[in-house]
Amino acid sequence: MTRPSAIPASVTARDVEEAAARLRGVVERTPCLHSVTLSDITGADVVVKFENLQFTASFKERGARNRLEQLSDDERRSGVVAMSAGNHAQGLAHHAALLGIAATVVMPAATPFTKVRRTERLGARVILAGESLAEARAIADKLAAEEGLIMIRPFDDAAVIAGQGTVALEMLEAHPGLDVLVVPTGGGGLLAGMAIAAKAVRPQIDVIGVQSERYAAMVATLEGGPQPPGGTTLAEGIAVMEQGNITLPLVREYADGVIAVPERRIEEAIGLLLDIEKTVAEGAGAAPLAALLDQPQRFRGRRVGIVLSGGNIDLRLLSRVVIRALARSGELTHMTVVLDDRPGALGRMADVVGDERGNIVEVSHRRDRPGLEATSAEVGLVLETRDRAHAEAIRDALERDGHRAIIEDA
Amino acid sequence: MTRPSAIPASVTARDVEEAAARLRGVVERTPCLHSVTLSDITGADVVVKFENLQFTASFKERGARNRLEQLSDDERRSGVVAMSAGNHAQGLAHHAALLGIAATVVMPAATPFTKVRRTERLGARVILAGESLAEARAIADKLAAEEGLIMIRPFDDAAVIAGQGTVALEMLEAHPGLDVLVVPTGGGGLLAGMAIAAKAVRPQIDVIGVQSERYAAMVATLEGGPQPPGGTTLAEGIAVMEQGNITLPLVREYADGVIAVPERRIEEAIGLLLDIEKTVAEGAGAAPLAALLDQPQRFRGRRVGIVLSGGNIDLRLLSRVVIRALARSGELTHMTVVLDDRPGALGRMADVVGDERGNIVEVSHRRDRPGLEATSAEVGLVLETRDRAHAEAIRDALERDGHRAIIEDA
Repeated sequence: MTRPSAIPASVTARDVEEAAARLRGVVERTPCLHSVTLSDITGADVVVKFENLQFTASFKERGARNRLEQLSDDERRSGVVAMSAGNHAQGLAHHAALLGIAATVVMPAATPFTKVRRTERLGARVILAGESLAEARAIADKLAAEEGLIMIRPFDDAAVIAGQGTVALEMLEAHPGLDVLVVPTGGGGLLAGMAIAAKAVRPQIDVIGVQSERYAAMVATLEGGPQPPGGTTLAEGIAVMEQGNITLPLVREYADGVIAVPERRIEEAIGLLLDIEKTVAEGAGAAPLAALLDQPQRFRGRRVGIVLSGGNIDLRLLSRVVIRALARSGELTHMTVVLDDRPGALGRMADVVGDERGNIVEVSHRRDRPGLEATSAEVGLVLETRDRAHAEAIRDALERDGHRAIIEDA
Repeated sequence: MTRPSAIPASVTARDVEEAAARLRGVVERTPCLHSVTLSDITGADVVVKFENLQFTASFKERGARNRLEQLSDDERRSGVVAMSAGNHAQGLAHHAALLGIAATVVMPAATPFTKVRRTERLGARVILAGESLAEARAIADKLAAEEGLIMIRPFDDAAVIAGQGTVALEMLEAHPGLDVLVVPTGGGGLLAGMAIAAKAVRPQIDVIGVQSERYAAMVATLEGGPQPPGGTTLAEGIAVMEQGNITLPLVREYADGVIAVPERRIEEAIGLLLDIEKTVAEGAGAAPLAALLDQPQRFRGRRVGIVLSGGNIDLRLLSRVVIRALARSGELTHMTVVLDDRPGALGRMADVVGDERGNIVEVSHRRDRPGLEATSAEVGLVLETRDRAHAEAIRDALERDGHRAIIEDA
């Protein structure tokens, strides 16, 4: 009854087709919708693949499921292990549970509570160990050896790559005329799988990867540049510095390039997807739209499919992104006003703002900042405004009324 | 060339079928997806109809388009007018522009900038006038008479009702086995249209309306109770006190009841849709999920289709809902700590929190609150915590260390 489970070291379009058959009915066939407004903004003709509507809110289920389905009966009984603090952990935990396979996930010790809890709730055993991803990975490898668990790698695995490639098949079935696919890229599993599948269906299509410039390791490798700096990123899901032994040659052969985008574009893209598409994108999921915003000339006039690969973003972070976006668009203005510290001064200032139809939503009052005169007070205002010009009109009215007023730049 | 445009005073299933034919290709056929997690939470078997993915982010386009399509050539040349500060304004403006019909929208003078701007960008003339909705409506009626414009009402119009009914047809095509449809209800246009359409396809189905308890006017009328109190609501889109002359008899005949939900449930539902479904719901759009949360016994074990009718929520409001949800779940804890005001006290307090693995995300420091001793300082902390028990453990550790610490309830 034991099936062999040798996984080939490369991946073909046929592997992706077979993965699609395995995934049918067990992984969501997510919507792929045209966006008029994103098309207007970017100058491209944009369709969005909503992989954030998967059960665990990312495409990672596809690769994990395709890999798990090909385990031998012995391997299934042994159980599986992975190192991941993110979407691979959740995708694997969920499908292992559905298939009755015991799953262990090693996460670095500092992983946020919510990620641990979500993965545990999906039925996995979570082990918090290691100060870094590399340490956690070593611990997972050791555990695999000691307990005889099957290691399921997040991208450098042919069955995982084939599973991820099914995203491209669904996009081209929904929109056969696409000219370009734009794909979030960390280790390159999604990019490699999608490029292989897309080229088989539509050879003239371009398949482009996107990385945060802080983690643009694949860009550096492909173009021979220096290693990127690392650091904090909104796009944790693609903050991967390692190159895959399987993915890298496939990306070289099938993909049409990988581009790096700045963090501020990723932030802008998260805000647009929330405001316009009414959908929650994590940083990696917003990276393709960020690429269209950052390099519009590259995509203008073309039919572009962007993969909204996941929606697992910390909600506090999302709140901050929203508030900052409103500030940048001038719809929320932070202003500092220096008042004479006497009765009625605050009311008079508020009247001036009201006369200009600004809406005060937050006030903070300070009297003791060292640089202020003892008889003055500094008031921090948060105002709802129409736009930057409106904010400037309010500032000018305050200055005409004898206050000192400064707009704080977003 | 002039077609007659007499609009019948009632609506049949055939009218909805004809509306569906008119809307094909010009209004989005939005996804209707099963939700495992919402099913787990509510005990019902839940599918969600994502009408927030319409171009103007609400179902209102359906009724507006169906009405506009049936105007005579003369009427089209005359142009149309509506009173709405919300989704009806945007849906009408968009489809009037697509059809080359001039549209005027009257909004109350106090309407937020963003709503005015969005409607103007869609190509409508916006007139800000009237202190209340009733005043704005009177002004719109006057304008219609003076300028010979065709009034397009948001719900009390047979062609609008028939257009809204197409939501039910799409839901039953995607999920033919649904036992119940749960529908946001203001003036009753969506409820009436969906009930008529659904009963024709599947006579045994229940179609239930949902209102905010603050604006549960239709509940009061149907059950003979007192008028609801009004006031602020998260569900502006269904904050309607008027009864429709056309909708009310249709709701009586075809719908199976209307229920009222408290505001806090609507807030909870907005948070769940964002966190779990990764989608942005306005209050009205979250009302059906709120009903499932509030009256689970009514829906348990049934196949329930909920209409996420729109996604037009102020993003600042959405941010506040998110932060409050995290506070309620114990993932964000507000705590007040009284320190001795001496060097090192703040650092020592922070060490205690860190030892308990709480993550401090915000600190505010006050020395001058009247009730405090002159030698004490009050520190407000915002902490990331696992849950309420974790917050209590941190508080206890602070108290053991000699501080006074109080968890502020969400």
